[in-house]
Amino acid sequence: MLFLYSRLEMGVFQVETFPEKVYDHRSKVKGILDSFKPDFEKIEQVLSRHFASHIPLVNEISQYILFAEGKRLRPLLTVCAARLCGRDDEAVFDLSAVPEYLHAASLSHDDIVDGGVMRRGRSSAYKIWGNKATVLVGDFLYARAIELASRFGDTRIATAIAEAVALMSEGEIIQLLQAKNPSFDEETYLEIIKRKTASLISASCKIGALLAGAGKSEVQALSDYGLYLGQAFQMIDDILDYTADASELGKAIGTDLAEGKITLPLVVAIKKASAKEKERLLQVLRDGNPSEKELVWVKDLLFSTGGLDYTRSRAKALVILAREGLEIFAPLETKDLLNDLAWFVLERRK
Amino acid sequence: MLFLYSRLEMGVFQVETFPEKVYDHRSKVKGILDSFKPDFEKIEQVLSRHFASHIPLVNEISQYILFAEGKRLRPLLTVCAARLCGRDDEAVFDLSAVPEYLHAASLSHDDIVDGGVMRRGRSSAYKIWGNKATVLVGDFLYARAIELASRFGDTRIATAIAEAVALMSEGEIIQLLQAKNPSFDEETYLEIIKRKTASLISASCKIGALLAGAGKSEVQALSDYGLYLGQAFQMIDDILDYTADASELGKAIGTDLAEGKITLPLVVAIKKASAKEKERLLQVLRDGNPSEKELVWVKDLLFSTGGLDYTRSRAKALVILAREGLEIFAPLETKDLLNDLAWFVLERRK
Repeated sequence: MLFLYSRLEMGVFQVETFPEKVYDHRSKVKGILDSFKPDFEKIEQVLSRHFASHIPLVNEISQYILFAEGKRLRPLLTVCAARLCGRDDEAVFDLSAVPEYLHAASLSHDDIVDGGVMRRGRSSAYKIWGNKATVLVGDFLYARAIELASRFGDTRIATAIAEAVALMSEGEIIQLLQAKNPSFDEETYLEIIKRKTASLISASCKIGALLAGAGKSEVQALSDYGLYLGQAFQMIDDILDYTADASELGKAIGTDLAEGKITLPLVVAIKKASAKEKERLLQVLRDGNPSEKELVWVKDLLFSTGGLDYTRSRAKALVILAREGLEIFAPLETKDLLNDLAWFVLERRK
Repeated sequence: MLFLYSRLEMGVFQVETFPEKVYDHRSKVKGILDSFKPDFEKIEQVLSRHFASHIPLVNEISQYILFAEGKRLRPLLTVCAARLCGRDDEAVFDLSAVPEYLHAASLSHDDIVDGGVMRRGRSSAYKIWGNKATVLVGDFLYARAIELASRFGDTRIATAIAEAVALMSEGEIIQLLQAKNPSFDEETYLEIIKRKTASLISASCKIGALLAGAGKSEVQALSDYGLYLGQAFQMIDDILDYTADASELGKAIGTDLAEGKITLPLVVAIKKASAKEKERLLQVLRDGNPSEKELVWVKDLLFSTGGLDYTRSRAKALVILAREGLEIFAPLETKDLLNDLAWFVLERRK
């Protein structure tokens, strides 16, 4: 049972929050992605344009890290945020490479950190080139991102980016410190995901608004949108880590559990499970590297204790908050697209 | 024989390039450092002020990385460059923390990269806290540095810093690729040290000049000074890696050889050695982890082939170039201090 949410359940959700549009799930997701097709094409072009190094190996590793099957959510948000604030030119696309470079750099450092072996359906970079080169190429991509962010003559852009990087590394460190801690709670979880994921998604929106010369309240509204959306995005990621189809997701299932990483579904399960179940769950967590049988048992427990449902309902609430924040903007096509994107984050299966 | 350069030889050098001041070596070095004492005290204060994280472990590791016995050469250069261009206030000291944070971040990543076990007389951070936390705290310090650099309202400062970080990581990567390559030449060596060391030392000077609102030619002159000085600094480092007193240097001797890192003394030795010596030398290099006996043999070879002398003469030539670049500035006390610093870089024993 790889997908715990039935078509029916999703249908109900759609009726609640998207009363005007009830489509078939797959065609709706495809429709959203198709509407961004010209943007995605331009984004791929700028991503190639700005990272070039004089060192062939740096290019090779950067290329490998950057041009896997990324969702390009962050650059798309930069582009949409700028567009919503009235700017839509080449500079916007150039800027949109910044958060994707940071994201790629952070993934390459995180993979080393977590010992992850698969990323986007392929080997992690460090498994091919070693820790040494991968840490350094990560540093190189961070630097290229900051260089690019500094080119637009507005120090608020570089500051927003640097703040996000500091928060991202802090988030990863808290997660590291809290691994296997059975008294890990929802508050700690939210602290971590705000920092490690939502801060950059928020900054992706913020820099778009800043580049467009938006007013303070617009910049704030788009930062908030990103912060809510980023948290929802991570919650869905944490659900998918247990429920997705490994081949569709492009990485192994159950890696969070294997690494002792406690996410919201697990927080709920630890709280709601019977004494006996809780004992067994904590044992699996302490031991690390669960067997296939143990993983199936944990997945069932996450389902029966409502851990997955609860996480999904929290993500849904955050997506509603994200959408509400956009109300200050006049009805525009871009606003609809950002609303659609919020929906996409919730309904994606990889 | 830990010091291959006799007092006499240094005396000759002093007479050539510092005809006006021939002091006893130790008191001269002490004199230079003493003249910067109030600056060093202020630098320590700002270094504590700007890295604070909400996460105690991040502070602990940052503290450990930052407050070893660093020379604080980079912040001192920022302060002196700004002073030479007419600015000497609190903001200058705040800015001076930027290159030291980057330096500390880079050291912590490099230690992971190179497997170095000692740094500044103590265990490397990653040996205590593990690769995971150390990579992330390095990222955190990079981010804090960029945040700080963006605060001064001049995007050229953040750009200069980001460029240096990109070059530093490229330099380390070239070094990694070229490890144990017997056809490694002086040109490659210069490429590496310009990137991995001189770029940040140059940026340290440049940002001081930029903050002081210096003109284009002053900014260029101070960047060049840093670029020459930085190369000389690394050459002396590479000599000291073979010749220093381990307890004085604060790290093990012969680590470059152990890691297969080819530096200028070795380039010369490979070129000048007899066929038999060359064969043995390349064997030691290929094998890695030389014995004490092999290390002594290599040191003697670096001496007899003139590898150490040649490297020192190249460093000396670069220091002269560094000093010449300062000629466009009116005679000022700070200019003398920068001249003294150039001398210090050449004569330091750790």
